[in-house]
Amino acid sequence: MKNILGRDVPEFIEGYGKVKQYEGYLSNKSGSVKKDFYFKKLMKEESKLYKDFEKLMDVLPLKDGMVVSFHHHLRNGDYVLNMVMEEIYKRGYKDITLAASSIFPCHKNLVKMIENKVITQIYSAYISGPVAEAISDGKLNKPAIMHTHGGRARIFESGERNIDIAFIAAPTSDEYGNINGVDGKSACGALGYAHTDAELSNVVVAITDNLVQYPNTTIEINQTKIDYVLVVEEIGNPKGIVSGTTQITKNPIGLKVADLTAKFIEESGYLKNGMSFQTGAGGISLAVAAQLKNIMKLKEICGSFASGGITGYLVDMYKEGLFKALFDVQCFDLEAIKSAKENSAHITMSASMYANINNKGAVVDKLDVVILGATEIDTNFNVNVTTGSTGVIMGGSGGHSDTAAGSKLCIIVSQLVNSRISVVKDRVTTITTPGETVDILVTERGIAINPLRIDLIKKFKNSKLPIKTIDELREISKNMTGEEKNVQFLEKIVAVIEYRDGTVIDTIKKLKTF
Amino acid sequence: MKNILGRDVPEFIEGYGKVKQYEGYLSNKSGSVKKDFYFKKLMKEESKLYKDFEKLMDVLPLKDGMVVSFHHHLRNGDYVLNMVMEEIYKRGYKDITLAASSIFPCHKNLVKMIENKVITQIYSAYISGPVAEAISDGKLNKPAIMHTHGGRARIFESGERNIDIAFIAAPTSDEYGNINGVDGKSACGALGYAHTDAELSNVVVAITDNLVQYPNTTIEINQTKIDYVLVVEEIGNPKGIVSGTTQITKNPIGLKVADLTAKFIEESGYLKNGMSFQTGAGGISLAVAAQLKNIMKLKEICGSFASGGITGYLVDMYKEGLFKALFDVQCFDLEAIKSAKENSAHITMSASMYANINNKGAVVDKLDVVILGATEIDTNFNVNVTTGSTGVIMGGSGGHSDTAAGSKLCIIVSQLVNSRISVVKDRVTTITTPGETVDILVTERGIAINPLRIDLIKKFKNSKLPIKTIDELREISKNMTGEEKNVQFLEKIVAVIEYRDGTVIDTIKKLKTF
Repeated sequence: MKNILGRDVPEFIEGYGKVKQYEGYLSNKSGSVKKDFYFKKLMKEESKLYKDFEKLMDVLPLKDGMVVSFHHHLRNGDYVLNMVMEEIYKRGYKDITLAASSIFPCHKNLVKMIENKVITQIYSAYISGPVAEAISDGKLNKPAIMHTHGGRARIFESGERNIDIAFIAAPTSDEYGNINGVDGKSACGALGYAHTDAELSNVVVAITDNLVQYPNTTIEINQTKIDYVLVVEEIGNPKGIVSGTTQITKNPIGLKVADLTAKFIEESGYLKNGMSFQTGAGGISLAVAAQLKNIMKLKEICGSFASGGITGYLVDMYKEGLFKALFDVQCFDLEAIKSAKENSAHITMSASMYANINNKGAVVDKLDVVILGATEIDTNFNVNVTTGSTGVIMGGSGGHSDTAAGSKLCIIVSQLVNSRISVVKDRVTTITTPGETVDILVTERGIAINPLRIDLIKKFKNSKLPIKTIDELREISKNMTGEEKNVQFLEKIVAVIEYRDGTVIDTIKKLKTF
Repeated sequence: MKNILGRDVPEFIEGYGKVKQYEGYLSNKSGSVKKDFYFKKLMKEESKLYKDFEKLMDVLPLKDGMVVSFHHHLRNGDYVLNMVMEEIYKRGYKDITLAASSIFPCHKNLVKMIENKVITQIYSAYISGPVAEAISDGKLNKPAIMHTHGGRARIFESGERNIDIAFIAAPTSDEYGNINGVDGKSACGALGYAHTDAELSNVVVAITDNLVQYPNTTIEINQTKIDYVLVVEEIGNPKGIVSGTTQITKNPIGLKVADLTAKFIEESGYLKNGMSFQTGAGGISLAVAAQLKNIMKLKEICGSFASGGITGYLVDMYKEGLFKALFDVQCFDLEAIKSAKENSAHITMSASMYANINNKGAVVDKLDVVILGATEIDTNFNVNVTTGSTGVIMGGSGGHSDTAAGSKLCIIVSQLVNSRISVVKDRVTTITTPGETVDILVTERGIAINPLRIDLIKKFKNSKLPIKTIDELREISKNMTGEEKNVQFLEKIVAVIEYRDGTVIDTIKKLKTF
């Protein structure tokens, strides 16, 4: 059947089950929490500490069909997921469900495990590299479930799925499992995505390369959640964990988009005392932050908070008094990590606090302005950040649709045409974020306001900014690119796009020619 | 039947139910977590904020038979429990279970609600004043359940009981329920006992007299747990919330006990680098801390942490580098509150992290030395801190039996004889803490080592300290006091003493003559 966004989503998907259809971003009205398990108590004098990986694996309740989880704060420098999955593979377990908050190119070794049916299901908010390609090529036994960052917290907190064993990369830990991400040679900053895993898994293992004396004096996740502490040589490659610094785009087109965006925000009325703000680490997004910083300083505006993945740019704005607090679910660069350690109003938060639709109030619901990217956007403002122009998975929502839904003003920034490909499509390959939650598209050729935002259309009626309809932008781009070829798919569903409330907003099918 | 401590505890208690008998402090080996409820999601743009108490009460799902909870960090200055219960009383609800972590003399208005069957059951770790007297007098419909601080977290986390509505006194909150106890005119410090309530109750109300702009930049309990924020004039009387400073005893006998205790610890071998330590806010306990401080400085010993209710004395030791960290479940004085705000290694912890037997590792299990008081101690080292010499309830375990069980060296400090009453008895009126978890009794007339501690008896064989058997101390005291009259009780059970694992260690009966 076609869902309300016009996407073909069957009522039942083999390997996924019965589908709850997407019915609008505000349709989910009651929440539930379910947490129900027995665990082995730590007896007095008993130790949690292991220094031998294989000995620890011997005592863990590994089994066929189990769900194992990982968080992605070590990003493309992560050693932990590979280390654990190689051992599970070596020991011959099968039919594993991998719940990894994100998967990167460094996790390429998972492909052989997918091919050999050791891993048969994957939950993730973002997948790029060889694993993404293997999924698009139909190699994974069941459809991958691509959720949002907030959706992941919801799935496990609501008891929709249970995690059997969580493996938590912990840049610093004491022997009792008080962990943080801000100290140690593999420091990665906030550990926001690991909270749900620690909170709700039957067995929780912290894996560290920096064991400190009890008690660790900076604690993000505490001892009451951790069953075992494993000490290894290295949990990750610092070069892959963080970039030294995140960079503002130098591309003049990108800078023009940023300039228009900042001007739009200024004129929109949202730029005022108490404003809250989120932007990603993309080059254009950072350029918007840099422009806003100047405007805020000039106008002596003090915002309330900046949130999300935190970068040095946001830290600078905080330090200059432009934001009262930073809500941090993951740090993108060294400046952010340093600040998370030093500044008491740089507050680390769980993914649930950040973006879960299913709790008593997430930070995204207090967001005024969010700046997001897009691979594609259609003329109904539906956005794709999951699949690339070739139809292959190359990302995923992360917090994209969470922040779009929560914020008062969601702005997509993009070059209109890049390498002869238009960002505006008649139809996007995959819907990641529903158009009803997206307010503005800013491109170098003009700014389109979602017709649902009658208030903004009225407000910008006499603006000197290049306001256009999204259909006009579509026409302009068509003239620049000519007709684009549609990607050809087969019938087999290789991934299910779950909206943050657990409904299915779209599916991804196997590519005809890979 | 008689339990293993020789106490008469029936298999079934009217108004309480089937009894799990106490079987030793290490008998509980597996843990469970159960959290399962639906809640009203906060919709986008919906507000949590109420400034009118009655309007809030109108929207709460109040009903006969409900369980309502409160925490006691405002101690004898608390206005919140009285305010809410008066309103429930006024509205005519009946058969309420009151889960208040502690109850003080300021809560005297509850007596009429007990008499009128509005409150029919009470869970608490410590009860003193008119409510305690009413319970001892048999006025409460069902037996009061007197648990430990850690036991309270266990009861609600394990799903043994559910809290319908939690009312959390919040010295500072933003409109979305990010709360802390360290700011505002009613600052009380750590909010350790409120965490379980926030985590596990269907509906959670934060009540504050200091509303700050979103986001509150110091967050102990966050917005994802709070349904409503109520702003009132005053949540408490600062004079009752904290004493200005806690005071070392000036009594020369008390000082002698403290001196012997410090010397005993020094000789015991536990006073070394990395030692962890807890002591209450009693005058003798504080004197022990003062003595230890001198010894630690002299010997250049650096401990790992001090825990518990934190006082200015422990803060001073932390500041002088004698402890690396403070684990704080509640602050006893202004110095402690200030430190909880300012020092990053002054770590606030939940009651569950502090002392719950039913999680993956509590702080009490990492304790080396704890100094505790006693109303009575028998010759098997069983301690009573629940009932007074008249048989009336005047306290309760709090963290007494939690820390005794967790620590490596549990020392009871007391005057042997006070006002012609001996602390050592042949039989204590009520067992709060089992003797197998108590190692040492220090009095001005000598130090008794629990015979279970063969290692310590051996170690102190040639000590110059006045080591005696507890029977010898009993004899000495008998000669000083003469035979003491036993208190006379009726058959009716008015309170059940639950050990931290949920077994019943003793009961309290109605007094014959009140």
